Amino acid sequence: MQNRSQQTHQKILDAALVVFARDGYAASSVNDICAEAGVSKGAFFHHFPTKQTLFLELLETWLATLDLQMEAIRQEYQAVPQALIHMAELMGNVYQAAGGYLPVFLEFWTQASHDPAVWQVVIAPYHRYQGYFTSLIQQGIQGGTLKPVDPALVSRTLLALAIGLLLQGVLDPEGADWANQTRQSIELLVISIQQEAA
Amino acid sequence: MQNRSQQTHQKILDAALVVFARDGYAASSVNDICAEAGVSKGAFFHHFPTKQTLFLELLETWLATLDLQMEAIRQEYQAVPQALIHMAELMGNVYQAAGGYLPVFLEFWTQASHDPAVWQVVIAPYHRYQGYFTSLIQQGIQGGTLKPVDPALVSRTLLALAIGLLLQGVLDPEGADWANQTRQSIELLVISIQQEAA
Repeated sequence: MQNRSQQTHQKILDAALVVFARDGYAASSVNDICAEAGVSKGAFFHHFPTKQTLFLELLETWLATLDLQMEAIRQEYQAVPQALIHMAELMGNVYQAAGGYLPVFLEFWTQASHDPAVWQVVIAPYHRYQGYFTSLIQQGIQGGTLKPVDPALVSRTLLALAIGLLLQGVLDPEGADWANQTRQSIELLVISIQQEAA
Repeated sequence: MQNRSQQTHQKILDAALVVFARDGYAASSVNDICAEAGVSKGAFFHHFPTKQTLFLELLETWLATLDLQMEAIRQEYQAVPQALIHMAELMGNVYQAAGGYLPVFLEFWTQASHDPAVWQVVIAPYHRYQGYFTSLIQQGIQGGTLKPVDPALVSRTLLALAIGLLLQGVLDPEGADWANQTRQSIELLVISIQQEAA
């Protein structure tokens, strides 16, 4: 059971997602979110000092869920090539589960290019994922399942595929089966980097 | 020699690029662009009915230049794998030449997800490039330089790499040599899809 304050907190988060996805982050006001949630501005500012704080909580919740799922895959698939392909399938599910978040996250990303405070916020998870995949590729090389590629270069290539496919999926949701496309794009990359069976 | 009207037109375009790159597209006003260009609002609206018209002219000029360069590469390199790698080098130059446009283009892309009018504008060049690379991959398969892959799937993978690397380059310009990264990421993909020498 949530108490009343937790319910209000969650009600504001749910409303913000609706408003951000509909109008975009930049064009959404605290008033719009309060109207959607049916709460007062006083209640809003009791829970979130700024619109940005609220967005960051949405983002962090989403990334934390993604991290748990990636870790579960890593535990299940010891071979790095198979782990990468199952993570690609997870990305496919992201299209369904987090449809509302994605345009907002991408908008935030582009805002980072001209707002140093936003940049600080976006660069941290970006660097974290870059480090995560660099380390995963290193493990694959050491374990003999991957060729001796440049781990950081392949990590940035993986992130490019993930980001570039998400962006296309946001723009053109009906243009392809993006879950299947993501799996197959990652498989194309894995073909290049995996060690051929001896 | 440009006449005075052409000079004013160009002055507004140059000023818009400065203002968009500095403040973002959504946060930039016609007043800001007029102040930067040193022109009146009357002069602005004589040349551009809306801020969006102006942005579209910037975008179309940039894409037209890119198209000419891609066509020149296609003429020079008949083999599709080599053409793709040289196009990746061209993308590398884009980071230098069009640094100011990129965040604005990405911002526009994300706005497309919640503004049907903007969506119409962004989806057209997206579909054009998707068709261009699908056709290029088909030519490679027919010419025997590429394996019998799904051309549309590989085209979307190429676009994902291009878009995802641009986005990382915008966020973290000092994080890598993005021109070199782009060439090497495309090479990784080409390794998977090229026909092995008989």
